[in-house]
Amino acid sequence: MWANPMLVCYELYKVVGGWSTGDDDVVIKILYCGICHSDLHSIKNEWKNAKYPMIPGHEIAGEVTEVGKNVTKFKTGDRVGVGCMVNSCQSCESCNKGFENHCPGIIPTYNTVDLDGTITYGGYSGMVVVHERFVVRFPDTIPLDKGAPLLCAGITVYSPMKYHGLNVPGMHLGVLGLGGLGHVAVKFGKAFGMKVTVISSSPGKKQEALERLGADAFVVSKDAEEMKAAMSTMDGIINTVSANIAMAPLLGLLKPNGKMIMVGLPEKPMEIPPFALVATNKTLAGSCIGGMRDTQEMLDLAAKHDVTADIEVIDVEYVNTAMERLAKADVRYRFVIDIGNTLDKAAAAAE
Amino acid sequence: MWANPMLVCYELYKVVGGWSTGDDDVVIKILYCGICHSDLHSIKNEWKNAKYPMIPGHEIAGEVTEVGKNVTKFKTGDRVGVGCMVNSCQSCESCNKGFENHCPGIIPTYNTVDLDGTITYGGYSGMVVVHERFVVRFPDTIPLDKGAPLLCAGITVYSPMKYHGLNVPGMHLGVLGLGGLGHVAVKFGKAFGMKVTVISSSPGKKQEALERLGADAFVVSKDAEEMKAAMSTMDGIINTVSANIAMAPLLGLLKPNGKMIMVGLPEKPMEIPPFALVATNKTLAGSCIGGMRDTQEMLDLAAKHDVTADIEVIDVEYVNTAMERLAKADVRYRFVIDIGNTLDKAAAAAE
Repeated sequence: MWANPMLVCYELYKVVGGWSTGDDDVVIKILYCGICHSDLHSIKNEWKNAKYPMIPGHEIAGEVTEVGKNVTKFKTGDRVGVGCMVNSCQSCESCNKGFENHCPGIIPTYNTVDLDGTITYGGYSGMVVVHERFVVRFPDTIPLDKGAPLLCAGITVYSPMKYHGLNVPGMHLGVLGLGGLGHVAVKFGKAFGMKVTVISSSPGKKQEALERLGADAFVVSKDAEEMKAAMSTMDGIINTVSANIAMAPLLGLLKPNGKMIMVGLPEKPMEIPPFALVATNKTLAGSCIGGMRDTQEMLDLAAKHDVTADIEVIDVEYVNTAMERLAKADVRYRFVIDIGNTLDKAAAAAE
Repeated sequence: MWANPMLVCYELYKVVGGWSTGDDDVVIKILYCGICHSDLHSIKNEWKNAKYPMIPGHEIAGEVTEVGKNVTKFKTGDRVGVGCMVNSCQSCESCNKGFENHCPGIIPTYNTVDLDGTITYGGYSGMVVVHERFVVRFPDTIPLDKGAPLLCAGITVYSPMKYHGLNVPGMHLGVLGLGGLGHVAVKFGKAFGMKVTVISSSPGKKQEALERLGADAFVVSKDAEEMKAAMSTMDGIINTVSANIAMAPLLGLLKPNGKMIMVGLPEKPMEIPPFALVATNKTLAGSCIGGMRDTQEMLDLAAKHDVTADIEVIDVEYVNTAMERLAKADVRYRFVIDIGNTLDKAAAAAE
């Protein structure tokens, strides 16, 4: 049963060290883990907070192998997921409102000192043990490989669409940038019954956006004529771009009372002409992942509307190559590591 | 009856030119007009759009002297007001939603080419003729002099408080800048039952804010300790400051999901570090005056809670001096011209 080396270790620790699964914990055998661009930032220590040895990965999909005695939501064999956080204080105003992602005591899934002083390790691994509050259930119709990226890319775009009311049929949604986040935003926009326009600096993505992803329109952000034609037409824009780009023309695409939601993190401050917001009551807001209740809701809605990520499944051995390709944005749209079928093989080969 | 020279002219025009009051129009004898800082910008042509001769003034309070045959909302003798706009297309999406202030065809109260090709003239004058949609009724308990500034300063802060849900009892509102707009924002915040903190670079305004205006707290924006103590405590901030100031520390005062609303117009682009918005879903929004339905609602609420502007009433002859003092921010908090009692006198003296 415990062919997976991490699970073998866990069982061994419990015997040798007298450990037991925490009362509220869910033990998960990891089957798939998505590669988020933030994994690349983290392993390269680009955010100056790396704690090596690091095990990245926060788009985790797998199967429950054991639950603590207080766990009520899950049982052995359940298909579950873990996203960007594995704990929080669970008692502050943000936690009580369902925004564990805003808790000052948030414990991200990896590269963080946990409450017990240990470092958290992520999903490029055979198993993970997580408080049940931070585990979500995959609906039966969502494949675990294509579903894994929803736990970061999916919730990151879904949460602000819901919070800011950009989920109403007939509304016009702009999706700025067509990558891991953007392609899921297009799918959710269509699932909500919205008109979706992709805004991109790459004219080459037009066919892909319209034909494969089902967007209704495509605007090349460097094309002044196309931008002019799209002025004041959008109710909201999900801005997935992490580069510093000119904001005023993009805010000009919004209708009065329109909202641009930043989900990327450009390195330098954005320059925002006040008039671009003030004249017709526009909003520039930020958003970072989402709370656990919303994450489950997002998966349920994704199942209903057949929303999953477009992925390239890779073996564990391919991770370093995948990282190099990711750095060049050479993936449509997410790498997902087939942990379940290839980790043991890789571990055996390394011995 | 027609001692007022502008009204005499109007009556004369009608006789000589065969004019008549438009079917939807309300003729108003102006009794008071507030002096907004934008009047100063306009007469100095600082926005490069001056059309001389200019009659400024968009905080107009007076009495109805005549109505067109289709007018149903008003009758002769009614106490009414006119704010920043006197017409719009009345048929676009914004107009239909009650946001005439966002209509691409908006006709500001002065310094604009009206639909008939004439230039609009504002409230530093004896009369004004306005479509009834753009006229509001002063509740009986609001004095016209202290009520006049509500038509610009009042609606400018009320509208975003309502739109962004910053009108809930128990919420914590920050008011950044204590001038014409800020002092009314404090009063509305208290009227809504909120905790109100004034944030100002001038420590000297503390007593005024707390004792006279009823604010609950005062934070000196240049005092690092005070700013630190107030971090992450506010649900929203009404930012009335028109200067370019560092935004990141001010956004830091907001709780997760907090909202800063810009109602001033700094000259240069604001520099917004993305992380300051993204980390805990904060919002930076702009707002410019408000729609007519909200303007009437604002006056009704002001009457209920005894909210009026703190003013210095001046004679017509004092306007130029008032402008000089306004340029130095030497007024608490609004000059209001006593048109009704002093315009005729000034006109007579000028002959």
